[in-house]
Amino acid sequence: MDSIKAEFNGDETTAMSRIPVTILGATGVVGQRFVRRLIDHPLFEIGHLAASDRSTGKAYEEACAWRLDGEPYAGLNRHVLRAAHPSEAMAPVVFSALDSGPAKEIEPLFAAAGSFVFSNASAFRMAKDVPLLVPEANADHLALVETQRRVRGWKGAIVCNPNCTATVLVMGLAPLQQAFGIERVFMTSMQAISGAGYPGVPSLDILGNVIPFIRSEEDKVEEETPKMLGRFKEGMVEDAPFAVSAMCHRVPVIEGHSEAVSVALKGSPSPDRVADVFRAWRGDPRVAALPSAPPAPIRVHTAEDRPQVRLDVEKDGGMSVHVGRVRTCRLLGIKFALLGHNTERGAAGASVLNAELAHALGYLA
Amino acid sequence: MDSIKAEFNGDETTAMSRIPVTILGATGVVGQRFVRRLIDHPLFEIGHLAASDRSTGKAYEEACAWRLDGEPYAGLNRHVLRAAHPSEAMAPVVFSALDSGPAKEIEPLFAAAGSFVFSNASAFRMAKDVPLLVPEANADHLALVETQRRVRGWKGAIVCNPNCTATVLVMGLAPLQQAFGIERVFMTSMQAISGAGYPGVPSLDILGNVIPFIRSEEDKVEEETPKMLGRFKEGMVEDAPFAVSAMCHRVPVIEGHSEAVSVALKGSPSPDRVADVFRAWRGDPRVAALPSAPPAPIRVHTAEDRPQVRLDVEKDGGMSVHVGRVRTCRLLGIKFALLGHNTERGAAGASVLNAELAHALGYLA
Amino acid sequence: MDSIKAEFNGDETTAMSRIPVTILGATGVVGQRFVRRLIDHPLFEIGHLAASDRSTGKAYEEACAWRLDGEPYAGLNRHVLRAAHPSEAMAPVVFSALDSGPAKEIEPLFAAAGSFVFSNASAFRMAKDVPLLVPEANADHLALVETQRRVRGWKGAIVCNPNCTATVLVMGLAPLQQAFGIERVFMTSMQAISGAGYPGVPSLDILGNVIPFIRSEEDKVEEETPKMLGRFKEGMVEDAPFAVSAMCHRVPVIEGHSEAVSVALKGSPSPDRVADVFRAWRGDPRVAALPSAPPAPIRVHTAEDRPQVRLDVEKDGGMSVHVGRVRTCRLLGIKFALLGHNTERGAAGASVLNAELAHALGYLA
Amino acid sequence: MDSIKAEFNGDETTAMSRIPVTILGATGVVGQRFVRRLIDHPLFEIGHLAASDRSTGKAYEEACAWRLDGEPYAGLNRHVLRAAHPSEAMAPVVFSALDSGPAKEIEPLFAAAGSFVFSNASAFRMAKDVPLLVPEANADHLALVETQRRVRGWKGAIVCNPNCTATVLVMGLAPLQQAFGIERVFMTSMQAISGAGYPGVPSLDILGNVIPFIRSEEDKVEEETPKMLGRFKEGMVEDAPFAVSAMCHRVPVIEGHSEAVSVALKGSPSPDRVADVFRAWRGDPRVAALPSAPPAPIRVHTAEDRPQVRLDVEKDGGMSVHVGRVRTCRLLGIKFALLGHNTERGAAGASVLNAELAHALGYLA
Repeated sequence: MDSIKAEFNGDETTAMSRIPVTILGATGVVGQRFVRRLIDHPLFEIGHLAASDRSTGKAYEEACAWRLDGEPYAGLNRHVLRAAHPSEAMAPVVFSALDSGPAKEIEPLFAAAGSFVFSNASAFRMAKDVPLLVPEANADHLALVETQRRVRGWKGAIVCNPNCTATVLVMGLAPLQQAFGIERVFMTSMQAISGAGYPGVPSLDILGNVIPFIRSEEDKVEEETPKMLGRFKEGMVEDAPFAVSAMCHRVPVIEGHSEAVSVALKGSPSPDRVADVFRAWRGDPRVAALPSAPPAPIRVHTAEDRPQVRLDVEKDGGMSVHVGRVRTCRLLGIKFALLGHNTERGAAGASVLNAELAHALGYLA
Repeated sequence: MDSIKAEFNGDETTAMSRIPVTILGATGVVGQRFVRRLIDHPLFEIGHLAASDRSTGKAYEEACAWRLDGEPYAGLNRHVLRAAHPSEAMAPVVFSALDSGPAKEIEPLFAAAGSFVFSNASAFRMAKDVPLLVPEANADHLALVETQRRVRGWKGAIVCNPNCTATVLVMGLAPLQQAFGIERVFMTSMQAISGAGYPGVPSLDILGNVIPFIRSEEDKVEEETPKMLGRFKEGMVEDAPFAVSAMCHRVPVIEGHSEAVSVALKGSPSPDRVADVFRAWRGDPRVAALPSAPPAPIRVHTAEDRPQVRLDVEKDGGMSVHVGRVRTCRLLGIKFALLGHNTERGAAGASVLNAELAHALGYLA
Repeated sequence: MDSIKAEFNGDETTAMSRIPVTILGATGVVGQRFVRRLIDHPLFEIGHLAASDRSTGKAYEEACAWRLDGEPYAGLNRHVLRAAHPSEAMAPVVFSALDSGPAKEIEPLFAAAGSFVFSNASAFRMAKDVPLLVPEANADHLALVETQRRVRGWKGAIVCNPNCTATVLVMGLAPLQQAFGIERVFMTSMQAISGAGYPGVPSLDILGNVIPFIRSEEDKVEEETPKMLGRFKEGMVEDAPFAVSAMCHRVPVIEGHSEAVSVALKGSPSPDRVADVFRAWRGDPRVAALPSAPPAPIRVHTAEDRPQVRLDVEKDGGMSVHVGRVRTCRLLGIKFALLGHNTERGAAGASVLNAELAHALGYLA
Repeated sequence: MDSIKAEFNGDETTAMSRIPVTILGATGVVGQRFVRRLIDHPLFEIGHLAASDRSTGKAYEEACAWRLDGEPYAGLNRHVLRAAHPSEAMAPVVFSALDSGPAKEIEPLFAAAGSFVFSNASAFRMAKDVPLLVPEANADHLALVETQRRVRGWKGAIVCNPNCTATVLVMGLAPLQQAFGIERVFMTSMQAISGAGYPGVPSLDILGNVIPFIRSEEDKVEEETPKMLGRFKEGMVEDAPFAVSAMCHRVPVIEGHSEAVSVALKGSPSPDRVADVFRAWRGDPRVAALPSAPPAPIRVHTAEDRPQVRLDVEKDGGMSVHVGRVRTCRLLGIKFALLGHNTERGAAGASVLNAELAHALGYLA
């Protein structure tokens, strides 16, 4: 990897030199958030922006409809887009905001060429040898990359962050799994339009409306969640032994997924006890010090009508999740309101946090 | 009752003379829908509009901020509002759009004076001797009025329609209860702002937002549902023996409650079987011919992303409910999307349908 | 034309036989409104639905994402789409919901082949020999088709309805032009998303937002308005001699364009006088009896906060326009609020009304 | 004033001691923004929060529904609210977020008692001896306080910031007035719901709607604008000699007023020339260094569809205004899109900037 770093930085002897990264799919809404998060990152430095063939060779500002506040294009207006291929856009660390189809083709090329790929795509999430990380919950799963390299013969690796809705759910379930053990989970989501990208959801479809369908979303939540909360043992992850039922909806909200969760816990703890567990939880201690980690992974609200997506979701740069209304469920025992930022904690911020964890654990040395 | 009719119609000998009615709470959003539904009703004729003391003596158009389309005030612009008391606004049939507090005081006065009160208020819904009707599902519960009259010594009676969210849910559950038997129900609602009346929800609270709390709503759904689906036996209703867990949300939708329902059924029928039951269900045969009954109580959608509240809820004057996405639930067996009109099927239309049923069964003779 | 009618109806001897029509661009949001308006029309009968090559040969329900309430596809679910060419979809009357580019190519083919084309496209609106009709205001302009046929050697003709925003404006200006004479006009629009078609405006762009730009819209309003209010003389239309300044905005509204209008009138009439003129205006007497004409072309509101798009725009099937807040303008003399339905009065309904006028004046015999 | 400062700070000898302030109307949406702006202000220090009698004696968090992001109640949760009277809540500097009615009574009491009152209320804006400030545009008007003190015999003074819509407009007009001279102005506003306070606009009124009426708003804009751009001469302000016509609308936007402006300028400059003037303008040089002043008072956008309220209004803490689409107007010569933050630049931030100016010019010494 050293030679690659040298190619980028000119000087690899400095202890402080940052690791060059490539952002795949840099023009989309998640790609833009990668750019904004990485433009001043203490560990990583943007080397290449890559996009589809249609955009290759264009300046970033010509190929991208920047949708975020702050400085447009994060100042990279004239940065020329490269093709999404190792021969054009190699870097020791790659962040992928590709759609699932292209991701399936392109991410392995970079992993084979030696890149550590942190992917927001769904293509490899459920592969047995690919870590599906929510660092506060399952940092130890990162060790799956060793299995992955052995199996696939790659010098690099692919590490996935989960579906945005599943990420938020796992953040809300992990403390309960650790403190009590989970037996069953119901989750109904009310999801923001930004989750569909840009142009994404037509306004004629969603103004004043609720759409009770998001393609593949329920399956992703139901399958990814037990994997993330599973146990890493002898080079493999064993799924957590509980079932999840998800019902997913699109609502006219710009950023942030609201989730209504009901859960059966071992030992039938009281709502107060559960709220205390949420309040006390800090997640994996190796995560708290990472640059993108929030002050605490969960913010517990006491007001009877919170969390509310418009008022709460941008706190902590969107990296904490919000819990409120912990109360008794007549069927499963406990229910609560859950909220998280779908394009930060559920996408760009998640991948960056994964990369920071990999760095802290020595994988990017 | 005759003298009252005579007072209104001048001529009670005509077979076709309509029954005079009083609308309590006529100025609110549900009251307005009562007015619009009853202005040309084949069985009922508006006699009095009654409102709070503040409005008594004013013309309807002065006291009421009309919010519906169609003719403003249904042409009753200059109708003078009366006090909500039998001495001022007596009629053989009374429709009540009062809030729960005033309803508790005022509805019994009318019932004692001999009126048949069809109430949208929550005040008496859970009283053991008060029918809580969704006519397609439990028309036989109407016989509770005989118990009620015996117990309370009233000449009239109070008949309630349920909470709007519970109404829609019961419409979706009744065919399953009848065909299979229900064991457990999960329901997450995404509710329209009109449910909170006018001025109701401040726009600063709900634009681009989801509020995971509606006061008392979850309790109402969890308690009213088993009563409605219970068995009428020996002058009493025995609650249906299953538990309901509800999680209720306000979303930026104008009219119509969307519900995500998951249900455990006896015999574990397949989704196809369940969809067939929905399609075939016509409800109590005595209801189909009532003036406000929809062509079929349930419309089953086959498109994967329907029902959608903005596209579907106004069909059949808002009196049918909509079912879609009948599919397997990993926890309870069956889940589906449900949709209904909260201020028609869930309020004004519901009370009027109850009154039509009472008429058809001879209670208003 | 007779043979074509015979081809469609089998029997042209019946006095009651309706004129067969083709709808070009039948799958879009305006095309769908054409279908819904024409499915039970007393004069016209849908012969062919035509669409882009991509859809030719498909059933209507396969090629079209139906967005309207009422019966989906107006019952034409299995109607097979034809190519938009006279050889495939000839009819004596053609309604065109094509985009401007295709319209420029395709509409003349039909006109040359003998069809009377009623077009919602902008392609020919400003051509000197093409009538740009708002029938209540300028029914006499229809005679331009004679010039057009002479100049172009067509057996058929093209008749355009104006841009949706300009249509509403002309409805609001025509009575003032006729009663007083107009000297100058300012108009600021707040336009519905449906004006951009489907998928049209991405929800990420418009939720909670105002976009101060709609491509070409201001030019269209400024150029089309004087043509429509011009004088027909010796086979030509002489533009009305006043300037219009338009500022156009997109707002999060589903249907209906709101316009703030300020106008300098000859003789400086008072607001009361102007409101009386609006109230009294009935437009061209030959229009009032047409099947799609509203009871009165203008509804004048007296409430200080009306018209409001959500409450008022659907009245009269969207065919009337709404005026309110007629008051003094410190600069031009009179200002008022104006509102109209962009996809009915401003698109599909407008073309149909134009065709009805042509029929009444004997052009379609 | 010294004794009051001493009462607050205990030590008035320190050069660095901040000036204690009282916030009147601290529980409303503008009051909350005052609190958030002043909690860490370099010149001012919150002494008292005052509110209506109903709230007096309560803790801030009990009396106030905090609607802003950031720390709830800015940490003043337990701060006890005082009565809005000098005997209870005296301070050398007072910020008033009162409604106009109470402001008329209460603000003079503080001014008479010696406070410098910076008011967001409309009560005294049009009084001949009260400065109506937009500091970048008319800092010299502050000298009106000397006239005011002489006329009214007050030790203190009242200084007003204008109506929010007028503030934004004056920011957009001031550079043009200075560079060219203004002859006539048209302005159509599309205003955010936050301008109506909380609970303010009912959601049933504004979801998917445009309301063409905001009480008194048009008059305020038309009257306040010429006063602000008038000339200060011999102790009085002479109104600028041009007329303004305003048409005001409420739209479903949370924060930020969009304005469509058309203006006749002396010498008929080209759009390019006008855009250059906007770009170059820095306003009164004494303002640029004030703590709440934005980097530049005007941000000029070049993208054809900007500024957009949701993307742009929060820049610079809402203290800059945005200009875009400078183009030719067929009637007045120049038109452009204008945007500003109604509750910061148009309310709380405006008052604080006024106070900072007064401090810089020695009025608060």
